[in-house]
Amino acid sequence: MRLEIVPLTTIPEVRAGDDLATLIQAAAARENQIIDAETVVAVAQKIVSKAEGALVDLRGISPSPVAQSWAAEWGKDPRLIELVLTQSRRIVKMDRGVLIAETATGLVCANAGVDQSNVDGAGITTVLPQDPDASARRLHAALGCGTVLVTDSFGRPWREGLVDVAIGVSGIEPLSDLRGTADRHGRKLTATVVAVADQLAAAAGLAMVKDAGCPVVLIRGYNWKRAGGSARSLVRDPQNDLFR
Amino acid sequence: MRLEIVPLTTIPEVRAGDDLATLIQAAAARENQIIDAETVVAVAQKIVSKAEGALVDLRGISPSPVAQSWAAEWGKDPRLIELVLTQSRRIVKMDRGVLIAETATGLVCANAGVDQSNVDGAGITTVLPQDPDASARRLHAALGCGTVLVTDSFGRPWREGLVDVAIGVSGIEPLSDLRGTADRHGRKLTATVVAVADQLAAAAGLAMVKDAGCPVVLIRGYNWKRAGGSARSLVRDPQNDLFR
Repeated sequence: MRLEIVPLTTIPEVRAGDDLATLIQAAAARENQIIDAETVVAVAQKIVSKAEGALVDLRGISPSPVAQSWAAEWGKDPRLIELVLTQSRRIVKMDRGVLIAETATGLVCANAGVDQSNVDGAGITTVLPQDPDASARRLHAALGCGTVLVTDSFGRPWREGLVDVAIGVSGIEPLSDLRGTADRHGRKLTATVVAVADQLAAAAGLAMVKDAGCPVVLIRGYNWKRAGGSARSLVRDPQNDLFR
Repeated sequence: MRLEIVPLTTIPEVRAGDDLATLIQAAAARENQIIDAETVVAVAQKIVSKAEGALVDLRGISPSPVAQSWAAEWGKDPRLIELVLTQSRRIVKMDRGVLIAETATGLVCANAGVDQSNVDGAGITTVLPQDPDASARRLHAALGCGTVLVTDSFGRPWREGLVDVAIGVSGIEPLSDLRGTADRHGRKLTATVVAVADQLAAAAGLAMVKDAGCPVVLIRGYNWKRAGGSARSLVRDPQNDLFR
């Protein structure tokens, strides 16, 4: 086994309405990279949102009283806070300037995925794709690759720093469930469910350098369990979550 | 940029007192793999603990009343629970059969890192290395590689499945702090600190298949910030942690 992780470095600035699959295929061709049924294609949420027009102009937003008071208390843009609130179906934590929200698709993340970085134009902000699994499925079909992951950088309780995770998938069972299989010594593994889609996203993240604009990364040599798949299975059921 | 992730597949069963660096070098030589100053070497905690003799025989443990009642309630081995308690400096959550603890070095994880999988011998359990950074430093010096990461599989709030993280490092600044640098559009990145050591650990985890015994993985082609480094900087200060 030998995994290869290769970023595409010539993806142009993506704009609303662009056909992402065509941009990815053109970049791969320019860079002599083959995308085939054994290739994992990881795509940064940011360009998926841009292509799908998941963009909001803050200048059109009227902040509610709670957004205004929170923004004033923590030195934030009240329109941005209002946008975060409208992108949330539940607030998990709102404390010390940090806003952790549950999004419409159940993801738990800072600012409900609202993000101003790497966007062209003052006041323009991306929000998460409406249905990241569907975004992944469309790209998967158009690219003819093995699997597509839509990835985003999330913070975590207990640990510092962002890591990339899969927020949308197609063509992969995102959890590898080894429960019931035996370890090297014949002892049954009792609690080993590995978030392979998140590990693939993190591996791709190593090559998606934030300030260099490499929003698409190819991974080859990985043998994954093929399935329709949904990134929703990576989200813990709130009923079983001790930290929500 | 092209990252390569290669597991060593011929590491023998590790026993207390083994010289891990020698075992790794011998496996690399057998497998025609070069370990040099550009190589990241990720080593699973399990074999570090075994080599260092961080092993406990449950048969020598007398469970306390709290371990006994918790074990009875959730169908666990009371000696195992007692061991988890002795490995903890603080219990973060003890609920519904889940025991999340803060270890002596500040890590927050299930069962304080106590783990029975992949250990040879009934009743023998591994605990975390006493000082995982020191373990990484010793291996780093002996291997002459670029950096060493001691990795372990951790669960996470909000998301299902385990991902590998770095619990000990040497030769790397584990957080890549991009705050103050500009994105492609010249906008300052305000909240972008990436946990590169954890992303490397997760990437290595893809090749450390739990039931196949590949506890050492080489990563090549990654350009990281060289530093002494400590995995403690990956652990959020409890004062700033909204979920502890």
